[in-house]
Amino acid sequence: MNESRRYGILIVLFVSFFGLSSVLHLKASTNARWLAQVDAHLDEVLIDHAHCEKKAAGTALNLLSAYIENRELCQEMTEIVNEELEHFHMVLDLLERRGIKFRRLKPSQYGNRLHALIRKQEPQRAVDRLLVAGLIEARSCERFHALAQHVDDQELAEFYRSLFESEARHHTTYTRLAKHFAPEDEVNGRLEELYDAEAAIVAEGEPLARMHS
Amino acid sequence: MNESRRYGILIVLFVSFFGLSSVLHLKASTNARWLAQVDAHLDEVLIDHAHCEKKAAGTALNLLSAYIENRELCQEMTEIVNEELEHFHMVLDLLERRGIKFRRLKPSQYGNRLHALIRKQEPQRAVDRLLVAGLIEARSCERFHALAQHVDDQELAEFYRSLFESEARHHTTYTRLAKHFAPEDEVNGRLEELYDAEAAIVAEGEPLARMHS
Repeated sequence: MNESRRYGILIVLFVSFFGLSSVLHLKASTNARWLAQVDAHLDEVLIDHAHCEKKAAGTALNLLSAYIENRELCQEMTEIVNEELEHFHMVLDLLERRGIKFRRLKPSQYGNRLHALIRKQEPQRAVDRLLVAGLIEARSCERFHALAQHVDDQELAEFYRSLFESEARHHTTYTRLAKHFAPEDEVNGRLEELYDAEAAIVAEGEPLARMHS
Repeated sequence: MNESRRYGILIVLFVSFFGLSSVLHLKASTNARWLAQVDAHLDEVLIDHAHCEKKAAGTALNLLSAYIENRELCQEMTEIVNEELEHFHMVLDLLERRGIKFRRLKPSQYGNRLHALIRKQEPQRAVDRLLVAGLIEARSCERFHALAQHVDDQELAEFYRSLFESEARHHTTYTRLAKHFAPEDEVNGRLEELYDAEAAIVAEGEPLARMHS
């Protein structure tokens, strides 16, 4: 068992004892409105999920390119790229088994709205890019947890459960790496601001049924 | 042994019997001027090599995003992303062992000059993007072969030999995938044009010592 898997198991244990919010830092839980959107448009949410995994690989590769002198970051980003692409293909397989045609979808505004909050100047930019990437992983993780409990479909519930651990691990990796670029209390302060903003975005919701609507 | 490794061994056998140009389609061999540049600036060429591996992963991920409906392309691009990032870390390890600090470098104009040849309209754009990606892999492969024979340093010669097979395999994968977007004779005709243009670019050379100068 490699180090990241061992770390993943620790995260799952931590969540079992102390609850999701202790690990993920989120300021608001997914609401019933989103779960109703999923029920009404499950196929679209599954297709969007595949796009999200691919985009997450792209985010990690962009961060690797941007901060290529940081060897630890390069190593972690490489592992995340590999895992996200593995998940991308897992979702494509799931779509295929269900006869759902994978296609382009208009994305939700969630990602754009978070990216608009990223500061322009380095090293603040690095801190924000990493925190936002970690925040999106945290929300995905929380939604997989909510979906695993909500859906009747056992294959799907098991699938979301299987992804939960790696998303939580990616969240902690991004948040830890942000501390390479600024002192810990500064990063923690910025995390609070960004997570508050995210809670407001999620509370507002979006008309399109997406993984992050 | 997985399919791509088996295919890689076939490529090496093919090259041994019929020569490099039978597999790589290149119109000109690396000249002595480039080898002299390498001798004079080996550290820079090694650093540039790491950047090239990272950029190759980015190219594959961009192609996956652009042609996401093509399942075979998505699968092949995922394998290439993973392999290129593995090579990137292999080069970083090599730099570390040699006490060479990895840093940003002004890139050569080779990639930009080839990308400028890509047609704007689909599906011709897809054909050209895939052929150019395959062409860069072919040139890398040919240069690794030349370097393995040229350098006295045995660790380095062995390293270039170890990368040769995967670059040749990536070249054939990209060239094969281009035929998903246009009839074979059209792709072959365009390949001839692009490979002629590349030979002219390489013959001209560049003042900076880079993997593709």
